[in-house]
This record gives sequence, C-alpha cells and structure tokens, in this order.
Amino acid sequence: MTAAGPRPAFEAVRPHEAALDDAGPAAGNPLERLTALIGDDMGAVNQAIVDRMESPVALIPQLATYIVSSGGKRLRPVLTLASARLCGHPGDKAIGLAAAVEFIHTATLLHDDVVDESALRRGKASANEVFGNQASVLVGDFLFARAFELMVESGSLDVLRILSHASAVITEGEVLQLASANDITTTEETYLEVIGAKTAALFAAACQVGAVVAEAGPAAEKALYDYGWNLGVAFQMVDDVLDFSAHQARLGKTVGDDFQEGKITLPVILAVARGAAEPEEQAFWKRTLEAVDQRDGDLQHAMALMGRHRALDDAIDRARARAADAKAALAALPSGPIRDALADTADFCVDRDY
Amino acid sequence: MTAAGPRPAFEAVRPHEAALDDAGPAAGNPLERLTALIGDDMGAVNQAIVDRMESPVALIPQLATYIVSSGGKRLRPVLTLASARLCGHPGDKAIGLAAAVEFIHTATLLHDDVVDESALRRGKASANEVFGNQASVLVGDFLFARAFELMVESGSLDVLRILSHASAVITEGEVLQLASANDITTTEETYLEVIGAKTAALFAAACQVGAVVAEAGPAAEKALYDYGWNLGVAFQMVDDVLDFSAHQARLGKTVGDDFQEGKITLPVILAVARGAAEPEEQAFWKRTLEAVDQRDGDLQHAMALMGRHRALDDAIDRARARAADAKAALAALPSGPIRDALADTADFCVDRDY
Repeated sequence: MTAAGPRPAFEAVRPHEAALDDAGPAAGNPLERLTALIGDDMGAVNQAIVDRMESPVALIPQLATYIVSSGGKRLRPVLTLASARLCGHPGDKAIGLAAAVEFIHTATLLHDDVVDESALRRGKASANEVFGNQASVLVGDFLFARAFELMVESGSLDVLRILSHASAVITEGEVLQLASANDITTTEETYLEVIGAKTAALFAAACQVGAVVAEAGPAAEKALYDYGWNLGVAFQMVDDVLDFSAHQARLGKTVGDDFQEGKITLPVILAVARGAAEPEEQAFWKRTLEAVDQRDGDLQHAMALMGRHRALDDAIDRARARAADAKAALAALPSGPIRDALADTADFCVDRDY
Repeated sequence: MTAAGPRPAFEAVRPHEAALDDAGPAAGNPLERLTALIGDDMGAVNQAIVDRMESPVALIPQLATYIVSSGGKRLRPVLTLASARLCGHPGDKAIGLAAAVEFIHTATLLHDDVVDESALRRGKASANEVFGNQASVLVGDFLFARAFELMVESGSLDVLRILSHASAVITEGEVLQLASANDITTTEETYLEVIGAKTAALFAAACQVGAVVAEAGPAAEKALYDYGWNLGVAFQMVDDVLDFSAHQARLGKTVGDDFQEGKITLPVILAVARGAAEPEEQAFWKRTLEAVDQRDGDLQHAMALMGRHRALDDAIDRARARAADAKAALAALPSGPIRDALADTADFCVDRDY
C-alpha cells in the first residue's frame, strides 16, 4: 500500500485547522451551519433518497444504499436547498430536486470508479470493488434515470433543461479528462475546461435550480449559477491538491490516486511548467505520468518537486481566488445568515483538509 | 472463432424467407414499408441524431458516430414516428423524440457491451473493443443526457415522465438479468420480467410518446403502449432464439454469445425444464451455464438438446402469440396503411432471421 510519505511543505502554511477551530465547536464547520439553517429539509431529502432507491430488483437498493450512505458531504443537495431558501422558497419543491442532484452526482461517482478502476471511495471499498463493474454501471444508469423522474415531478421544464444540460456537460468533462490523461503537455486552460465541466457545472446547476423553483428571476439565477460555478472550480482544485497532501484516513481515498493513474491535475501542470528547464524533472514526469512506469518513492519525489515549485500552494491560491469570485457573486442576493453561511462554505471548501 | 454448427431443426419449418418474398421485392420488408410511409421524417431524425452527437470533445462524436451509424434497424424511432402519424400528428414534434428514443437505446447498447464484455455488435468490433470500456461508459452517459435535452425541447412533461420511467425500468431489467445469469433454475416468469423491462418497456414508451405528441388521448396511448410492449417481448424472444440459430453473417453478432456468457434465455429455460428427468442433461447445463466451463462442441450439443425438446420452435411460437397480441392492440387505432404496416412489422419481428 502507498505510504502517505513526508508532509509537503505547503501543509505548514495552510490555516485549515485554525479556521475550523475559529468556527467554534458548537457551530460546526460552515457546511454544517448551512445544513442547520435549512432546518429539516435535509432530513426530507435523505428520506426521498432512500425512497427512490427502492426497486423490486434487490441488488439496486443494496448497491445504491452502499454508495449513497457512504458518508458523502451531501454538499450539492445542501446547495440546492440553501439557494431555494435564500430566494424565499420555503423548501418543499426543492426537496425532490435536491435528491435528484445527489442522484446525478452519485451516478457519476459510480461510473467514475469504474472508469478509474478505483478501489476506495470515501474510505470504504468502492462499489465496483464490492459489487462488480457491471452492477456499478447499471445502477449508475438507474440512479440517473431516477433523477430525471424526480425532476419531472417538480413540474418545471426549466429545471429539466438546466440539469439535463449539466448532465451532458459532466460527461464531456469526464471524456476530456480521459483524453488528456497521461499527457504532460496538458495546459492549465484544458484543466480548467475539464474541471469546469466535470465538477463546476453540477455545482452551478444545483444552485441555479434553487432559484428556479423559488421563481426568483434571471438575476438571482445568474448570481447563484456564478456562485456555484466558482465554488465548484475551487472545490475541485482543492480536491486535486488533497490527492497529494491529505491525511489518507481523513480524505477517505488513497492519497496519490491521481498520480498513479497519470491524471494531469493542476499541481502537476504547475510543477511540470516550472521545471521545464530541468531535463531530469521532465524525464521524471514523462516516465511516471505518460508511461505510467512508477516505482517506490516516485510519489514522494513528485511531492518534493511540487514543494520546490510551490505547486500545491499556488494551486490553493488559485482556488482561493475562485472562492472569492463565488462570494462576490452572492452580493446580488438577499443578505442574512444563509448568504453568510454560503460565503463561509466557499472559504471552507478551500481550507478543508478532507 | 465459433463455428455456426449444424442448423437447428426448427429452421426448416420457419417460413421467414417465404414471408419476405411474399412482401414483393419492390415493397421491401414491412419495416422498410413502414419507414417509407413516414416519408422524410426518418431523414430528419437521422440528421437530428448527427447534430446532437456534436461536442467540442472530439472523442464523443467519434465514438457516438461509430455506434449510431453501425447499421442498426432504427426500429424504435420508426415506431415513434409511425405512432405519431397514425394518431394524426404530421411528424415535426415527433422527430426530436424519435432521436431521443434512439439515443436512450444506443446508450444502453454501449453500456450492455461493457457489462457483457462483448467484442462484436452488429457485425463490427463493438465500441468498447475499439475505444475502450471507459469511453463507452462515458459516451453512453452523454447520449443519455442528450436524450433528455431533446425531450425537454418537446415541451411535454408527459413525454419526460414516460421516457424517464422507461429508462429506470430498462436498468432494472438489466440488473435482474445480471442477477439471474448463470442460474439454470431461472423461471420463465423471471425471464419475462427481464425482457419486459430491458426491451419491451422502451418499445412501449417509444410508441406511447407518439400518441402523446399527437394529443390522441388515453385510449390511443394505451393501445400503442400495448402494441409496443408485446412487440418488444416478441422481438426479444426471437433475438434470444437467433443467438442459437442465426447465420452469423446476417445476425451481426457472434452466434452463441448468450450461451458463452451463461445467460439464461427462453430457449435454455425450455430445454432445461423439458430435460429435468435427464441427469446427464442437467449436468451439462450446470457445467456450461452455471460453472461456465465450456468445451468445443458444447454449443452444438446445446442446440441439439434444444432441437430434441423443441425449445427453439416453442420459443418462436410464444413470440408469435405476442405478435398476435400486438396486432390485436392496434384494433383501437385508425385503420389504413400505417396500421397495416405496424401489424406486418409485428409478424416480421418474429419471422426475421437477423
């Protein structure tokens, strides 16, 4: 198994643990505060999720329960509920949509794990490890179809348009990621395209549909879309940093997974670019990420190069700038505790260490 | 490669070639007649299919074109267009829906081939063979999402309800099939559940949405749903017979594929049940289909047992009875050349040899 290796340099300068402490033990982290502010709605969403995984075919709820209950942050449905509340909608219409958003996300996780041949997801054996790739592909399809059934019940064609488009964009991002894997000439621009599509599009749509069910109008829709998009970009950048820096037990997936698959993420792109004049470094990246010929100590060496080139710190800085954009987008929306918690959630997504 | 082996007994009694000749060389087969009756609409559907496979991510249209243009019968979109016309709708609103139906079908084919590890599809290397399982999973997801975008454009929540439900049911059928694979105690009842869900549900929905866009009312919707459901059951039963009986070149997939995967289809269920008193036969089915321990000559021996027990003939008879049910459902709909061609298509689905 992969050892976590030496802690990379940037860990010392990241204030995440202090930030969590600042929030106060009673208040919890910003995401927990946001969840508390939307009252019982998340309970109703969780119930809707359980109800809609039902099927006469027993393997479906078995596998779906396994992945849905495996301790995800439920960030996306919380965003839908909070967005609807922020726009003055009491919640009931948003509940089915929030469940639909989580189903779309879960379906993509199931298929991602098959595509990536991942063995771990959120600290447990991944569904494909336990139930096989075949069942994971099919139950992903089931959850996707169920998501659309839930959206139909909302009675809003706008919601269906937004989320069906986001679903198509997600797959475009995944395919683009697949096509640029193992190519160390991948640019930061292409990386932004990939994470915009595969992650930010659903964050943006999850927020926007909250405004749609609240009938809050195009300005609120756009503000929440922009908030979600920038939050999603920041979230994914940090995810990609954590793949090189996290404590494995907290991260819930194998540290160095992306590296071992030859995925070209922001820390890699920055390190490769900044070591362009060093033939030895270029040869290292080519061997490990293009040829995927990896040896003991390679992950640690990659981390050391990233430390030397400030690749992780600078990736976090880029994420922090996106979080600032997310917060700026909120200015167009009603002030109050929900807006504050959404703003803090943007910071939290950058400062988290899991 | 698998040799086709001796022609099974039932081939001699099936009148499919005579039936095709009766239709007259100019008229073509009933499906071609039906397509001719809906005029230019299939051309518009094919154009919509090409347009909607577009993506800035080049691999998506490459893979999608590969599978969509690989010579499928386009049976399902023709059913949607013909159903709409039969109910008096000129066609334009049905075109996007017909494309959506074909996209859902194509997405399930892509995922099926990954699940079944198939190497051939319609006589060509399957998409997963050429582009890999990863791309096949993701492009299947893309086509599924695109299907929903097309449906949203129809502006009908009823259409979305019908097709999202059908999509969920399809995956239930696929999972049930997976769960009953390699189990020779699978009953005919379970088999009917599987094929109803994985095949008939989309045939039924494809027909029903034609009535919905034509605003033809619940009686017409039900009649077309029943027609499509029974047609789909008959179609799948014949497909499962052809896996043991077809000329490989015409079938476009490997004869004996289902047998080699240990799929428990109607011919197997009938042969196993009728040889229940023969320990040697039971041992043969257990070894070949449960343990999937197969040797040279096993497929031929399976075919011989099916011949002895009339399993293929009787499966065709069951399909013929379903085709009759399909035709009976048409009685509630306006008479004329489209209804006649739909009726003949039901017979054709039974009598086809590919």
